[in-house]
Amino acid sequence: MAIFKPIQENEATGKVKEIYDDIKDKRQITEVPNFWKSLANNPETLERTWNNLQKIMKKGALDPITKELIYVAVSITNSCEYCIRSHTSAAKKKGATDQMIKEMIDVVGLANQNNKLVESYQVEVDKVYK
Amino acid sequence: MAIFKPIQENEATGKVKEIYDDIKDKRQITEVPNFWKSLANNPETLERTWNNLQKIMKKGALDPITKELIYVAVSITNSCEYCIRSHTSAAKKKGATDQMIKEMIDVVGLANQNNKLVESYQVEVDKVYK
Amino acid sequence: MAIFKPIQENEATGKVKEIYDDIKDKRQITEVPNFWKSLANNPETLERTWNNLQKIMKKGALDPITKELIYVAVSITNSCEYCIRSHTSAAKKKGATDQMIKEMIDVVGLANQNNKLVESYQVEVDKVYK
Amino acid sequence: MAIFKPIQENEATGKVKEIYDDIKDKRQITEVPNFWKSLANNPETLERTWNNLQKIMKKGALDPITKELIYVAVSITNSCEYCIRSHTSAAKKKGATDQMIKEMIDVVGLANQNNKLVESYQVEVDKVYK
Amino acid sequence: MAIFKPIQENEATGKVKEIYDDIKDKRQITEVPNFWKSLANNPETLERTWNNLQKIMKKGALDPITKELIYVAVSITNSCEYCIRSHTSAAKKKGATDQMIKEMIDVVGLANQNNKLVESYQVEVDKVYK
Amino acid sequence: MAIFKPIQENEATGKVKEIYDDIKDKRQITEVPNFWKSLANNPETLERTWNNLQKIMKKGALDPITKELIYVAVSITNSCEYCIRSHTSAAKKKGATDQMIKEMIDVVGLANQNNKLVESYQVEVDKVYK
Repeated sequence: MAIFKPIQENEATGKVKEIYDDIKDKRQITEVPNFWKSLANNPETLERTWNNLQKIMKKGALDPITKELIYVAVSITNSCEYCIRSHTSAAKKKGATDQMIKEMIDVVGLANQNNKLVESYQVEVDKVYK
Repeated sequence: MAIFKPIQENEATGKVKEIYDDIKDKRQITEVPNFWKSLANNPETLERTWNNLQKIMKKGALDPITKELIYVAVSITNSCEYCIRSHTSAAKKKGATDQMIKEMIDVVGLANQNNKLVESYQVEVDKVYK
Repeated sequence: MAIFKPIQENEATGKVKEIYDDIKDKRQITEVPNFWKSLANNPETLERTWNNLQKIMKKGALDPITKELIYVAVSITNSCEYCIRSHTSAAKKKGATDQMIKEMIDVVGLANQNNKLVESYQVEVDKVYK
Repeated sequence: MAIFKPIQENEATGKVKEIYDDIKDKRQITEVPNFWKSLANNPETLERTWNNLQKIMKKGALDPITKELIYVAVSITNSCEYCIRSHTSAAKKKGATDQMIKEMIDVVGLANQNNKLVESYQVEVDKVYK
Repeated sequence: MAIFKPIQENEATGKVKEIYDDIKDKRQITEVPNFWKSLANNPETLERTWNNLQKIMKKGALDPITKELIYVAVSITNSCEYCIRSHTSAAKKKGATDQMIKEMIDVVGLANQNNKLVESYQVEVDKVYK
Repeated sequence: MAIFKPIQENEATGKVKEIYDDIKDKRQITEVPNFWKSLANNPETLERTWNNLQKIMKKGALDPITKELIYVAVSITNSCEYCIRSHTSAAKKKGATDQMIKEMIDVVGLANQNNKLVESYQVEVDKVYK
């Protein structure tokens, strides 16, 4: 059981119902994912998060696949199972291949290792990088 | 001062010198960065890290710019200043535009927020993502 | 299964039994929570942790609800399910309303995002904050 | 030097200038802090972050001091110096006493320790907390 | 279900099969653990990780028990259940006693607390440690 | 400047002065390190932390060098410069060799990488480890 019970679709009214419909419509899915159903306990959080996510994850100088892979890389580093699974799924839906995901994983592993090697040796920032 | 003193180029011999030369050659730079000078305290670590980095960061299904951006995203999440600065620099050198970097940053911010919203509500993984 | 088996109440003797009784008495609960049953594998850790927790979480300049909310905020940031669930429960028992918890969650989400925006841009500390 | 140069007040135009003025006005300060000057490199990020921060940090079921303390608790856990310093300063400005800050720190220390004790013993969530 | 399905032993061919045999042989176990079966989706990652692990975890100036305990300490700090369980198991197999594990846990708890106290008070590094 | 000013030795009175003397005596040092001077802002925190540290870091089933190395490994993973520097120094003072420290660093790097590979592939815990 969640800390707050997810708001089911048949319980949604007003702004929450509108956002649920918008999510299903834009994502072309038939069921609202649990993340949004949980946030719906605080309709303002639901609205703000859904709006921000659409703005930030849309195609820009970076394509949507790259954005999803970056999202997953952060989620792996933060050990967020839900986020890893849902955004790997989103990445695949947008066209990410298995090979792209495997290469992202290798970069994440390497960066996590090297981040800590830098801490270990307390490496000073080179002037050229400042 | 670092925990171990960086090994300067004029102090490098044998395998360390060879790797220093390889780094400068492949990267087309005239000075070995402090990260490698620090790792040189343990020549095996230096060799392993340099070899792995070349394999993992090279062009594959993902292009080198995307890999650098993923690397930076992890480094931001881990608060590693050296890694953020050196790999943002690498990303730019490989062709990343300012706009690409800004969009990556927005995704990192959003993912870090949403990762914690998921924890807060202890969102259950939807069947469709399993 | 846990790394060490929790010490059940009917297995507890000596100092462990005394602390178990103290926990149930002070908390007005009929069953010792698993956290304490696990720590009981190391009676010194059990005693130290129980003593410190009582001192630190008691009413002071901050009221107990605020302290529990801060505890949960840290636990969310560290992705500790047990701690999120048990201390959200404790916060509610001490009088935290659902609205208070939702607002705490929003602050945690925002702070996690902004912490990483600060890292991304490597923002320098303003003189006025030093 | 930051990854992106902070946008100074005399360089700000349009939406950025408006937000700078709003920040100084609402905060009753005479100089825009570096955080906002850095975000100004991406005016949309600046606007979104400023708007979200005002909504989330304003008085609600939790008073502004409590919200600032929660913000600082997260920032300590994430080791974000800028955020620790700027929001401790904000907490004090809103009325937090030194004693309140010291008690918050103790809770943060305890929670970070206990979060890891829970991981160490892989403590199972009690039924009563689910 | 994993993001990528683990490669079962009867599905393994070529380099993957060789490494599976090597793991079972060196570890004197009859079944390949899931970690390696998952990495096998990317044979290069499997090979690199297996080779690095053997080099790094072998007896050196530090004995293998100490190395396993350090590995577990990091895994606790990162909240990696799989790693905590598998390397605690490895530590025991190599001779770590329950008492050694309990003392390691106490150090991990203390260090996590003190790390955050240092952040809280923004303690300056003493000259003697630089 | 720290959030709270460190309490200098000539400002210390009562319990704080006693603990300062105890630290210098037990550690055989002539100057109290900044960590303790900062904690002294809250004499109870100073006392509790000093007492716990002595109990936890003393020789037991694990020798003091191993405990210091574990402490440093956690501090690297948490990116705590002060803690990395002061406890690497403590480890050396207690007899840790440079080679021991280098091997600890390699284990920390590997564990941080593998922790994230486990998350990436969402590896299921083998029955044998439960």
